Amino acid sequence: MPKQRGKQTVALASPVAVASSACAAGKKEGLGPLRHSIDSIYENSLQGMKSWEQAESAMQRDALNLALSKGNFPETSIQYLLAGDLLGQCIGSVFAARDCEIPFIGLYGACSTMAESLGLGSMLIDGGFADRVAVVTSSHFCGSERQFRLPLEYGGQRTPTAQWTVTGAGAAVLERSAVSGNPNHPRISHVTFGKVTDMGIKDVTNMGAAMAPAAFSTLTAHFEDCKLAPEDYDLIVTGDLGSVGSDILRDLFMKKGVSLGERYTDCGLLIFNRDDADAGAGGSGCGCSAVALCGYILSGMRENKWRRVLFCGTGALFSPVSAQQGESIPSVCHAVRLIGGNGSCNT
Amino acid sequence: MPKQRGKQTVALASPVAVASSACAAGKKEGLGPLRHSIDSIYENSLQGMKSWEQAESAMQRDALNLALSKGNFPETSIQYLLAGDLLGQCIGSVFAARDCEIPFIGLYGACSTMAESLGLGSMLIDGGFADRVAVVTSSHFCGSERQFRLPLEYGGQRTPTAQWTVTGAGAAVLERSAVSGNPNHPRISHVTFGKVTDMGIKDVTNMGAAMAPAAFSTLTAHFEDCKLAPEDYDLIVTGDLGSVGSDILRDLFMKKGVSLGERYTDCGLLIFNRDDADAGAGGSGCGCSAVALCGYILSGMRENKWRRVLFCGTGALFSPVSAQQGESIPSVCHAVRLIGGNGSCNT
Repeated sequence: MPKQRGKQTVALASPVAVASSACAAGKKEGLGPLRHSIDSIYENSLQGMKSWEQAESAMQRDALNLALSKGNFPETSIQYLLAGDLLGQCIGSVFAARDCEIPFIGLYGACSTMAESLGLGSMLIDGGFADRVAVVTSSHFCGSERQFRLPLEYGGQRTPTAQWTVTGAGAAVLERSAVSGNPNHPRISHVTFGKVTDMGIKDVTNMGAAMAPAAFSTLTAHFEDCKLAPEDYDLIVTGDLGSVGSDILRDLFMKKGVSLGERYTDCGLLIFNRDDADAGAGGSGCGCSAVALCGYILSGMRENKWRRVLFCGTGALFSPVSAQQGESIPSVCHAVRLIGGNGSCNT
Repeated sequence: MPKQRGKQTVALASPVAVASSACAAGKKEGLGPLRHSIDSIYENSLQGMKSWEQAESAMQRDALNLALSKGNFPETSIQYLLAGDLLGQCIGSVFAARDCEIPFIGLYGACSTMAESLGLGSMLIDGGFADRVAVVTSSHFCGSERQFRLPLEYGGQRTPTAQWTVTGAGAAVLERSAVSGNPNHPRISHVTFGKVTDMGIKDVTNMGAAMAPAAFSTLTAHFEDCKLAPEDYDLIVTGDLGSVGSDILRDLFMKKGVSLGERYTDCGLLIFNRDDADAGAGGSGCGCSAVALCGYILSGMRENKWRRVLFCGTGALFSPVSAQQGESIPSVCHAVRLIGGNGSCNT
């Protein structure tokens, strides 16, 4: 019965299929390198709504609806909706779920939410509690700036370590493999939930540095628990460490004599054009890894570009209040192992 | 393999033991009817910390430590920590978990968090992913007022429908029954996750009215899924509907010809003295149902006062931003069925 493998990682008894996925994003993301894998691109940051927060909810709802319709899944066939976002009291998710007939499990993992929801969702299926669940998360640049930083109208200059919150939402439908019956779906085989890590970084414009130690902790646990090395993956991708954080993560592994190599990248480095000075050290936000995963990465897996993928959501768990009170930035990283369709489910 | 029973409720294959629980609370709660079941009562709202938010984290950590020490559980024996709270970006939980070596699963269910965490935690155990998990949640009157309402210094008058956020934290350790070996522990046998419900209430000083329809929806689903009636319970308790919301819930059931009867009460009605005018319509906040459950209710079950308990966490999923933007208050209710030690695990 116990499926625990090692200290932090569980191996699912039967890998869970990612039966469908979709993403929606803003104009800036729609001009970036991942544009061909984004299902819906908005021309306007308000998307016809009255506020950025309402626009974020609408975007999350769009992503969910797209994922459902791509897989031909009626909403009533989904047993749980796992969702969360960056806004205080997760209103991006709550107001998206308001018109939804699916039992709602609210999560808070900051920018690690996509990985957290994939992990929990696949465990609910593997544990026998559901055949099909949906996961969704989002972030919105304007809503995030208003909440965490300065009014946009202020037009403050950005530091080089600062990241640009992605306007985007990603949704996926997870399904028991025996139910999906389609052997070509990418599947989740292992889940590693991370511990809260805090190395004392207090600069909220340098979240990559704050989150890198959490990623190092969780990846190390994953490799040890599964007796795997980076070479056992075709792609290792963190959520939103950006250029600063991903360099730190590489360095932390190098100090242990481990090279992450070319197979390692970060969603924050993938999503914006590298010559886009505004994007600073790269993309961030729940939507960053959600859009990259639900579009680019899962599409690539379906096309057999990568067969073994380690998707590592990274979250900076601070709030405007904690930052104003002089607190440092606790962080967390959750990782899921994805295997390509028709791939071996053994490690 | 599938354990789904009815539309929204799952029956666990083996009821999961609540092996230990503890709660900590503020001075006002310590003067109320539940004072004898509160493990630690603080004389001061800052509890020696520099801010109310830090005090909330310390209180959450205290409750967790007390629950661990009561059960003689080393922190390293806990496989997951499921936690959440009312503060933006759940900083009450995050900063409590910062010094903790347990993989962290962050939740957001507003005041339904204790029920949400009991539900998910017991499913992780029943699904075979862990033998022992801890759940914890909290709220703090001063931090909540600062965030959701007005500065305390303003001294504004409160409306009769307003509720008083409980300063308190509750923690429980859940364990696979076969591992706990103690047949006297109360056990979780069924979990009903609720849908987000919104009847258009916009008055943030009347959350009971906003949440009552969510409670009605989830309880109705639970009774139908399990083919149970209120009479099949010794105690049915909602989280924090207060006097206004619990009256509405009774009325909603009466319209269906169902009487909840004397067995029904609400944690918000239990926690403060009924002649305490400040408490208005009753207690609220994540800490309200957490303190009542982890102290009074579980103690009563251990003493055989009640054998069949339906614990229904209720959450108002709004934020200061959504309220300022004129949005209504979406709500959710999650329910867990608890059975007394040595009780039948069948419904």
